[in-house]
Amino acid sequence: MTGVKKEILRVLREAGEEFVSGQRLCQELGVTRQAIWKNIGKLRENGYQIESVPNKGYRLRSVPDRLYAPDLESRLPEDSICHRVEYHDILDSTNTRAKQLAEQGEPEGTLVVAEQQLAGKGRRGRRWSSRPGEGIWMTLLLRPGLKPAQASGITLVAALAVVGGIRRVCPAEPLIKWPNDIVLQGKKLCGILTEMSSEMDFIHYAVVGIGINVNHTDFPEELEGKATSLRIETGKEIGRQELIIAVITEFQRYYQRYLERGDLSGLLEEYNRYLANREQPVTVYYGMTEDENVTRQGIAKGIDAAGALLVEIDGVCERIVSGEVSVRGIYGYV
Amino acid sequence: MTGVKKEILRVLREAGEEFVSGQRLCQELGVTRQAIWKNIGKLRENGYQIESVPNKGYRLRSVPDRLYAPDLESRLPEDSICHRVEYHDILDSTNTRAKQLAEQGEPEGTLVVAEQQLAGKGRRGRRWSSRPGEGIWMTLLLRPGLKPAQASGITLVAALAVVGGIRRVCPAEPLIKWPNDIVLQGKKLCGILTEMSSEMDFIHYAVVGIGINVNHTDFPEELEGKATSLRIETGKEIGRQELIIAVITEFQRYYQRYLERGDLSGLLEEYNRYLANREQPVTVYYGMTEDENVTRQGIAKGIDAAGALLVEIDGVCERIVSGEVSVRGIYGYV
Repeated sequence: MTGVKKEILRVLREAGEEFVSGQRLCQELGVTRQAIWKNIGKLRENGYQIESVPNKGYRLRSVPDRLYAPDLESRLPEDSICHRVEYHDILDSTNTRAKQLAEQGEPEGTLVVAEQQLAGKGRRGRRWSSRPGEGIWMTLLLRPGLKPAQASGITLVAALAVVGGIRRVCPAEPLIKWPNDIVLQGKKLCGILTEMSSEMDFIHYAVVGIGINVNHTDFPEELEGKATSLRIETGKEIGRQELIIAVITEFQRYYQRYLERGDLSGLLEEYNRYLANREQPVTVYYGMTEDENVTRQGIAKGIDAAGALLVEIDGVCERIVSGEVSVRGIYGYV
Repeated sequence: MTGVKKEILRVLREAGEEFVSGQRLCQELGVTRQAIWKNIGKLRENGYQIESVPNKGYRLRSVPDRLYAPDLESRLPEDSICHRVEYHDILDSTNTRAKQLAEQGEPEGTLVVAEQQLAGKGRRGRRWSSRPGEGIWMTLLLRPGLKPAQASGITLVAALAVVGGIRRVCPAEPLIKWPNDIVLQGKKLCGILTEMSSEMDFIHYAVVGIGINVNHTDFPEELEGKATSLRIETGKEIGRQELIIAVITEFQRYYQRYLERGDLSGLLEEYNRYLANREQPVTVYYGMTEDENVTRQGIAKGIDAAGALLVEIDGVCERIVSGEVSVRGIYGYV
């Protein structure tokens, strides 16, 4: 029945100020008048103000500020990579749920969205703060025909999509902190966590988790000065559903260009344009533990087609591969 | 209580022809005489012939030809990578069960063994025949501190371990068909399927599934001429538990050498010695579908430290990466 609510919202939204007759809804959706009534009732229960005038029909007056799967689905274009949205009020983690679905055979393109995550995950299991109502916590399931070694590009594609999506819906100019964070005014705005299940030479599936700080007005003390939200930086409340759709749409565009070539060569210019540390001094930390703190200074030049960060150190260009080192630049080490 | 049965078997096996008193068992295991009786009863129910003579104690007379977790555990050395064996009469697939355990936080070193698999998997979901009583179907859970790009080596390490384990317990000289099969007399004896769950630069876990045809006396018609078993080739019934322990022990030895260097450089000589197609003509199939059948002839020279197969084609050495091409040599394309 999700499908009927989604289609009602799509038709009413497209009609704008015009009324849509019940008969037309029945015909376009191929369902009975009773099904239309029932689903409009459900939409109203969920906060959608739908005007109904005898002999004229229905008109969408207002949409609530909440996340709602049929509404999200109704805003996606027909040829969207995302064919289904699964919404939860509360989840441990959208990545964990998406992985469960994937193990059960769910096809590419399902988007898991949660209003709140109890155990939102950063990289390597670090905790990620996600309170209800403020952010976007979502995970897209992918089944790319790639080898595991190529998968690291998915995170970079998602970073481009978040930057592109945000720029489409609000007057902010976020930048990418390679490899998997988005920053605004030097503070963390978004984190991306890609996980995958694979064989030696074959990816079963990948899940791309995206967490964006949208309408937060403040942060827990330990994140102050380190994290920010779109609302704090722009002074405006941002429509989260609109932003989700913008990010997914941008993701699809970049993802297709990525799959066509099997690497990031078609996306280098755009990625490097949005790279926070580009042409800036960075410190490269070799060794993953605090005990082995070998550091070198250099200038970040951009990424290459495999997603490595190129850093000029003593006049020599070094390829920095994610996970081997960490890089600290003017945007800090979040 | 698994632990008590395991320890009883360990002590009795070490004692050999000597009797072990009930009092000594109580002391060594730190349990009551009642617990010893009860567990010896359980072992007898499971087919273990344990003699008991008043004033002398217990002696292990014979061991049944079956797979039994406490017995397998009792045969593993104290410092074995494998600290726990989980046995099932029937499973869909030992890899699937090991992945479930991994998702629930199971530590490295758990071995899942099944007498029968209903949906045994080959690479990319191909079916793998696994009837009860005849073979070894097992999966070892690993949590290597590796990056996803390094994980392909795990399959090659497992191949070495199977060849080494078989050579230790029976007079057969199997060879490795790169990258993930073991052949004997040109027929398939064993397949290896490594799967992993990872982030961009961090492996959560890997599961190494190993299927060995051990005591089969025949094969389904469609596999005739393509598959063989140790029993068919040696004329002898092989103790499956002994072989499992030998493979795990060899695996640990090779795996440690692999982790020390982070690549296969310390294992090249041994791997290449057992490589079925070494110095033999092979056909390299470029393109993964039948439509794109570009083929070239060459001579297989061995693998490199990253696990790629080196093939000399027209005097030039080409690196063949698993998944990009398939290679057909004198041992056929199984």
